[in-house]
Amino acid sequence: MNYMDLNSDLGESFGTYTLGMDEALMDVITSANVACGWHAGDPTVMEKTLRVAAEKGVAVGAHPGYADLMGFGRREMKITPDEAYAYVLYQLGAIAAFARVHKVKLQHVKPHGALYNQACKDEKLAMAICRAAQDFDRELMILAPYNSAFRTAAEAIGQPFAAEFFADRAYMPDGSLVPRSQPGAVIHDPDEACRRVLQMAREGTVTCIDGTVLNMRCASVCVHGDNEAALASVKKIRAALESEGVVLRPMGAK
Amino acid sequence: MNYMDLNSDLGESFGTYTLGMDEALMDVITSANVACGWHAGDPTVMEKTLRVAAEKGVAVGAHPGYADLMGFGRREMKITPDEAYAYVLYQLGAIAAFARVHKVKLQHVKPHGALYNQACKDEKLAMAICRAAQDFDRELMILAPYNSAFRTAAEAIGQPFAAEFFADRAYMPDGSLVPRSQPGAVIHDPDEACRRVLQMAREGTVTCIDGTVLNMRCASVCVHGDNEAALASVKKIRAALESEGVVLRPMGAK
Amino acid sequence: MNYMDLNSDLGESFGTYTLGMDEALMDVITSANVACGWHAGDPTVMEKTLRVAAEKGVAVGAHPGYADLMGFGRREMKITPDEAYAYVLYQLGAIAAFARVHKVKLQHVKPHGALYNQACKDEKLAMAICRAAQDFDRELMILAPYNSAFRTAAEAIGQPFAAEFFADRAYMPDGSLVPRSQPGAVIHDPDEACRRVLQMAREGTVTCIDGTVLNMRCASVCVHGDNEAALASVKKIRAALESEGVVLRPMGAK
Amino acid sequence: MNYMDLNSDLGESFGTYTLGMDEALMDVITSANVACGWHAGDPTVMEKTLRVAAEKGVAVGAHPGYADLMGFGRREMKITPDEAYAYVLYQLGAIAAFARVHKVKLQHVKPHGALYNQACKDEKLAMAICRAAQDFDRELMILAPYNSAFRTAAEAIGQPFAAEFFADRAYMPDGSLVPRSQPGAVIHDPDEACRRVLQMAREGTVTCIDGTVLNMRCASVCVHGDNEAALASVKKIRAALESEGVVLRPMGAK
Repeated sequence: MNYMDLNSDLGESFGTYTLGMDEALMDVITSANVACGWHAGDPTVMEKTLRVAAEKGVAVGAHPGYADLMGFGRREMKITPDEAYAYVLYQLGAIAAFARVHKVKLQHVKPHGALYNQACKDEKLAMAICRAAQDFDRELMILAPYNSAFRTAAEAIGQPFAAEFFADRAYMPDGSLVPRSQPGAVIHDPDEACRRVLQMAREGTVTCIDGTVLNMRCASVCVHGDNEAALASVKKIRAALESEGVVLRPMGAK
Repeated sequence: MNYMDLNSDLGESFGTYTLGMDEALMDVITSANVACGWHAGDPTVMEKTLRVAAEKGVAVGAHPGYADLMGFGRREMKITPDEAYAYVLYQLGAIAAFARVHKVKLQHVKPHGALYNQACKDEKLAMAICRAAQDFDRELMILAPYNSAFRTAAEAIGQPFAAEFFADRAYMPDGSLVPRSQPGAVIHDPDEACRRVLQMAREGTVTCIDGTVLNMRCASVCVHGDNEAALASVKKIRAALESEGVVLRPMGAK
Repeated sequence: MNYMDLNSDLGESFGTYTLGMDEALMDVITSANVACGWHAGDPTVMEKTLRVAAEKGVAVGAHPGYADLMGFGRREMKITPDEAYAYVLYQLGAIAAFARVHKVKLQHVKPHGALYNQACKDEKLAMAICRAAQDFDRELMILAPYNSAFRTAAEAIGQPFAAEFFADRAYMPDGSLVPRSQPGAVIHDPDEACRRVLQMAREGTVTCIDGTVLNMRCASVCVHGDNEAALASVKKIRAALESEGVVLRPMGAK
Repeated sequence: MNYMDLNSDLGESFGTYTLGMDEALMDVITSANVACGWHAGDPTVMEKTLRVAAEKGVAVGAHPGYADLMGFGRREMKITPDEAYAYVLYQLGAIAAFARVHKVKLQHVKPHGALYNQACKDEKLAMAICRAAQDFDRELMILAPYNSAFRTAAEAIGQPFAAEFFADRAYMPDGSLVPRSQPGAVIHDPDEACRRVLQMAREGTVTCIDGTVLNMRCASVCVHGDNEAALASVKKIRAALESEGVVLRPMGAK
């Protein structure tokens, strides 16, 4: 049996500001990365998001970010590993409180935006985040790219790790993404994206931009639901997987 | 055997700003109300505070407040019970993460400043806070004045409640504090304050401003450690209790 | 010649969050109340808003609010007059910097949300805000309800005042709004709203809920542009005024 | 006649948190760099700081920083030049409002912490900040190191520039500071620091770490008043200058 998880960021509304199509998205994904009040989200949004996720049976993870609401956590900041540890732990605890109230287990953590991007390359930052996850819960999965400092750090300390696959991005033979500045970096054909996800689900491989077939077992596909078009793409991927007999379920399902 | 707990607010530094004499204070108190990053405190401060509390064997509680760092959480805000529920739950989770890392149990919750004062009188606000505590942990104690909406709410839903006593404040026969605007509201004589704490520890009573002796079992005395003078007062109370055979221990000790 | 100003709140987007239909709205209104970064707005939003206002010839005013982005400045806070003075002055300066860059004069100040509502009834708060306006610029107009502590305060210190009219709200004979809880408080018929605006523009009066015709010279009508329907209403009011020969121009025009 | 200005950062308290010895410091310095509410300072602190500066005749400048109170504006952030322009303009306007109320002219702008350090090396960032200053006030002086992108940018657009000298830091022959990691980077002898300031005031030169005498006309010396020892050093420098006939006055004095 082949399995695949679909993960997406959500819970990113804040106060009077609404973002995303969370409820519709939760009908198609299997894991939700929920903003924790720093780069987006507020406690009432978190409460509602966890409630809806629990109702719909979507697994939940923490989506901690920088305390930069103005920049939506997308701007690099230079923080120390100790700060990263404390900031992630704080946000893990906060979101876990809402998970507890709605009787769901926090399945994973996937950092947001610049924190994610920086830690993908920065071993100390990645290790600080993985340690925060481990000190909080030895079973909390780290969700990040296969080819990243997150995987190295998680494996080094024995924390469960799940790789995420980007269906619409081309890969280099070393497992990194083709930079957006290069031709062919983005896969615009939705059918091609579906084929790539299917290949990942069935074989655990990706065909790189140079034709190399790379072993890169990813438990989850990262999808987006910011608008109707994005939502339609997710539905298409889900339908393609289901029609080929791939079982959609959260990355942490057993 | 008579027991008494001494509780104090701490962990109220923020970034480069230092407040209070936390380490010295933690040598004399038995329970710490730790700021959760909203009215004061930040994750690195919380991490350090929980670490030191764990080392010194001081029991820890959450000290959630309004998201008003500029006003230190002391300014009244008009929020809904649903908002209060979510805000307190968020802060409970955040501080509990640091407690978990340092292998201590979160003993209690005592709201801060204006949130505390408003909820003392507002039944719906008090109930929302007590429900957040209960949904988070059925054993989490509510620490608040004996004569307050907190006690009514906690008792109504069966959440453990501990009353706190103000050693330097005069009481009305109904158990409320004599308003500061009235003569005799504040007890300036430290020896008198000590006598009142001893009476509370041994008899569970307070002698009110009109001479009435009121039954008002308080498990904890609220003390302050903002400066050397305040710290000296706490030491004096502690010494008085110990010399009379009262055992100092956290309110939640069994 | 009869004149009327149409004012609306805008510039309330923040970071990645978009709110309102500012550009379309600025084609129909004559005065913009621009958020100053506390309850909404951020510096890049302010910059863009002032640029567009300057291009379209819309007069600009400050729209200062509480530092409560999570509550969009709509939740009452208990602050001192000194704090109100400093908070409004800060926001006046900030928005005025963008006005200066785009070579437009700051025409007025209209506080936002809870700050506005509280100061309408609280003389000390209203006076603190009017003093901040006066100390900043003796010509800065205070825009607020006719029947409010703002008018009293502004007149007491000789700061220019402009009253705003709510086209869709019924009035009491004392000039206050009929509370929303009472029947007839909101005028749902757009034609009726237009008639009331015309009456105000031509006669400076409003027909109260009991039939009394009240003199209440308002220089501006408060309108909203949060969505297509609201925008259509504003266009309707503008068209009605223009077809009757009322000249639409900013309240501060001479 | 030889002149020298002494500048220092202040107004960095926030809410209940007090930092620095502002009043005592303002008795010895001639120019104050006042925090604008982002990395530190709040409107009531700004109001008080400008009031005291006006009373004591200290010239005032803006000290804008990142919106990172938790990191005191000392952590690098990756922002765009457009963001830097808007953020600095916002803070210039805010502090200028308090200057206006206290009838003093805003003399200069000196960015804070990481924003300062990054812009010293980043031409686009420096230019964005200088343009904000110029668009706000063509006479507003840019205060920054002699050897920095600030000077290049200010000169390129014709905005007045004043260089600041670090009395306790050794210089390289190219005018940059000797990195703190290298021996001799910090000058610990206060007499030596005084001699260097005197040399700067009289000759406009600095003797570099390799003995080279470099022309580097600095109008101001950057000093600190965080504690008693720092304050004593400033007094010593001031006394040394005065005893040698150097006139202490704000950089912008004419």
